[in-house]
Amino acid sequence: MKELRPVQVILLGFLITIFAGSILLALPIATQSGQATPYIDALFTATTSVCVTGLIVETTMTHWSIFGQAVIILLVQIGGLGVITITTGMFFMLRKRITLGNRMLIQESMGLNTMTGLVPLVKKILIGTGIIEGIGAVLYATQYVPEFGIGYGVWAAIFNSISAFCNAGMDIVRDDSLRSYVTNPVMNFTTMGLIILGGLGFVVWKDLWQGFKKIVKDKVPVKRMIQQWRFQTKIVLSITSFLILFGTILIFLFEYHNPATMESLSLPQKIQASLFQAVTTRTAGFETVAQAALTDASSLVSMFLMIIGGSPTGTAGGVKTVTFAILVFCVLSVAKQEESITLFKRRVPQNLLAKALAIIVINLIVLMTSVLLLLVFDHGTFMDSCYECVSALATVGLTKGLTPNLTIAGKVIIIITMYLGRVGPISMAIGFSQKNKKKMVMYPEQDLIL
Amino acid sequence: MKELRPVQVILLGFLITIFAGSILLALPIATQSGQATPYIDALFTATTSVCVTGLIVETTMTHWSIFGQAVIILLVQIGGLGVITITTGMFFMLRKRITLGNRMLIQESMGLNTMTGLVPLVKKILIGTGIIEGIGAVLYATQYVPEFGIGYGVWAAIFNSISAFCNAGMDIVRDDSLRSYVTNPVMNFTTMGLIILGGLGFVVWKDLWQGFKKIVKDKVPVKRMIQQWRFQTKIVLSITSFLILFGTILIFLFEYHNPATMESLSLPQKIQASLFQAVTTRTAGFETVAQAALTDASSLVSMFLMIIGGSPTGTAGGVKTVTFAILVFCVLSVAKQEESITLFKRRVPQNLLAKALAIIVINLIVLMTSVLLLLVFDHGTFMDSCYECVSALATVGLTKGLTPNLTIAGKVIIIITMYLGRVGPISMAIGFSQKNKKKMVMYPEQDLIL
Ligand SMILES: [K+]
Ligand SMILES: [K+]
Repeated sequence: MKELRPVQVILLGFLITIFAGSILLALPIATQSGQATPYIDALFTATTSVCVTGLIVETTMTHWSIFGQAVIILLVQIGGLGVITITTGMFFMLRKRITLGNRMLIQESMGLNTMTGLVPLVKKILIGTGIIEGIGAVLYATQYVPEFGIGYGVWAAIFNSISAFCNAGMDIVRDDSLRSYVTNPVMNFTTMGLIILGGLGFVVWKDLWQGFKKIVKDKVPVKRMIQQWRFQTKIVLSITSFLILFGTILIFLFEYHNPATMESLSLPQKIQASLFQAVTTRTAGFETVAQAALTDASSLVSMFLMIIGGSPTGTAGGVKTVTFAILVFCVLSVAKQEESITLFKRRVPQNLLAKALAIIVINLIVLMTSVLLLLVFDHGTFMDSCYECVSALATVGLTKGLTPNLTIAGKVIIIITMYLGRVGPISMAIGFSQKNKKKMVMYPEQDLIL
Repeated sequence: MKELRPVQVILLGFLITIFAGSILLALPIATQSGQATPYIDALFTATTSVCVTGLIVETTMTHWSIFGQAVIILLVQIGGLGVITITTGMFFMLRKRITLGNRMLIQESMGLNTMTGLVPLVKKILIGTGIIEGIGAVLYATQYVPEFGIGYGVWAAIFNSISAFCNAGMDIVRDDSLRSYVTNPVMNFTTMGLIILGGLGFVVWKDLWQGFKKIVKDKVPVKRMIQQWRFQTKIVLSITSFLILFGTILIFLFEYHNPATMESLSLPQKIQASLFQAVTTRTAGFETVAQAALTDASSLVSMFLMIIGGSPTGTAGGVKTVTFAILVFCVLSVAKQEESITLFKRRVPQNLLAKALAIIVINLIVLMTSVLLLLVFDHGTFMDSCYECVSALATVGLTKGLTPNLTIAGKVIIIITMYLGRVGPISMAIGFSQKNKKKMVMYPEQDLIL
């Protein structure tokens, strides 16, 4: 254990959690029928849960017993909080003190500048998560209890709330996700609220909470509170708002006349459904309209939004809003022939630029490889295969119908893609590379013609 | 004229050439029937010629008269040599001396370090082009003259040779490109040779020619000659070889059992056809197998190769091999947690990294926008639309059959995409941006969590 580097701890932690989950789910007790699930499907389900992807090969409501569902939602909760729960869990499990290196890893990935109290921090995050998921569960219960009775209604509401906040996108009440609630505002806005909050990430939660306290307690004006937010928070909130607005408008336009999705809805319902589609691609994976019925144009917009995904240190996947911001502002800086890359009057350091570039490139490479393998080893169309792989890589969980019909090879491809998507292919690359000892050799700079 | 910046000269030069060509092609004399071509089709044909794309709405052999064909191949020759012919042409046309700024532009884009003689350089390039295209024409003539007689055979051979060296991919002997020559080694290897040479670019031509002279005249050993090549040349040759090998193997695998393309061919013919497909995606656009019949897996590999395209300062399009090299080595450096991005023991400067990133991002944005618009305004499937737009943006000219059936809106979308692809969307962005006067303001560096 001593020789594992922090990033390897995370890679291994996710793997162990997945395999432990798969064994529990392969037990006969985990299914309603009492028959053991084939191991590949148990593994697929454990992976989709820990990676908070939400692509499913068996309908969660009908196939799994309450025990199975409990295992799934526990895996979702562990996987959703990701680095924090996995790493601290790994160390408690191994009865080891959290070493300085790993402490730094957690702090760096959570955006903390101080070395103070990790344990209080983890506690705060868990309490905050509990409160938000509790509120979500109450709201869901107002709809589920009348429909399913007190017992299953409350269970379904808790399941749904954890699943939404963790951006997992699974539910235990239907086999068509939230399609029957497309016109129900409580279901729509509860789900969207949880998805967005979960996807904003820890740094933003902290700023939002402190801002809220300042306004309520210290009567600080809103404008001044916003000024005090961290740069990261401002970027995340602007890009997230922009993406949701942009997505809603385009999907509204492209689905307005689509009889298979929104044509029959009223204008406000159309807007609500478009908004939901734009929000769910922030890698949640619930759907209120059938993804297979979307126009190709909407599907392309959805894939674009999925690849970008949520924000760093949150429960969402994708290459992340901050990476997207750096890419866009790099283009603007190069177009203006500026000496350095600037982002809202801040210089982007070279190593950050390189990391953003590496993230986008390696994600594209993994995506293409995954689509290519799926085309070779499975039977989907090009569009359906692209949608499936984007969904798996960005841990979204939306499908055009391929998932339940995947061959074994296809399932293996998607399992690997989901894992890579959750740990981040760049972490994988770092984990498997030998760290280059900072040599004294400084290679000469080399200009090239592009 | 004085106020135009160099990059704007190029943007405008291409535009003027396209519009002049479209007017000539719209004349009744340009068609075999003597009937004027609709202007949108004349504009499409002029654009596809100047941008050396090769997507065509009218069969070049049957629709256009010898005059029309001559206009087309002249536009191809001008567009193929690109920056050099367009800019020098612009200045001769405007009877202006070539200013220092524009001299520097040409030199920079040609990778010259010295300020000596532009005119002798342009002469050398034209003579070299003439010699290579002459050899190509003779080789084509050995096949075309027996088939079409001396007159049309020679004309077709010259047309084909220019078209191949300039990576335009048009011909005047068939309406199915080179499919009937799929088993003909002279046609295959002449075409591949011209495509590759044209796509390597000026810097490499210079090194290859000087290396050739050294070996013949000075009896320098090959190994030492290679050591003396510029870094750019080594990168271009390694990446080009890698891409061709990689493409050939995958396409061979994915088409081996495809009855619509290669199943009936012998093993060496299968290899030859796979090699041709891998080479033609270096943005030439000739085809020996029907693109519409390719498996989805081969189509994806082909799109990947097309997006990368050829090498800088050559006749090919795409984001270019050198950009691709920087992207890949950036991932490797980040994975190894190196302090700087290194490429074969050379450091990549920050501005080069930013430019590579900007090129890949803006190309992806233009590509997605183009596919989205085509899906909305035309009737192609997702795969066919992706293939068409990749082909247009990377100036390739391969199609799965969409081009001749495009609506007017579709034609406009493809025309704009071809133009952007040839001038490079990043040049466009630079041309339209106000150059940021180097301010004394140095913004603070800002770290972010990705
Ligand atoms: K998800
Ligand atoms: K071409």
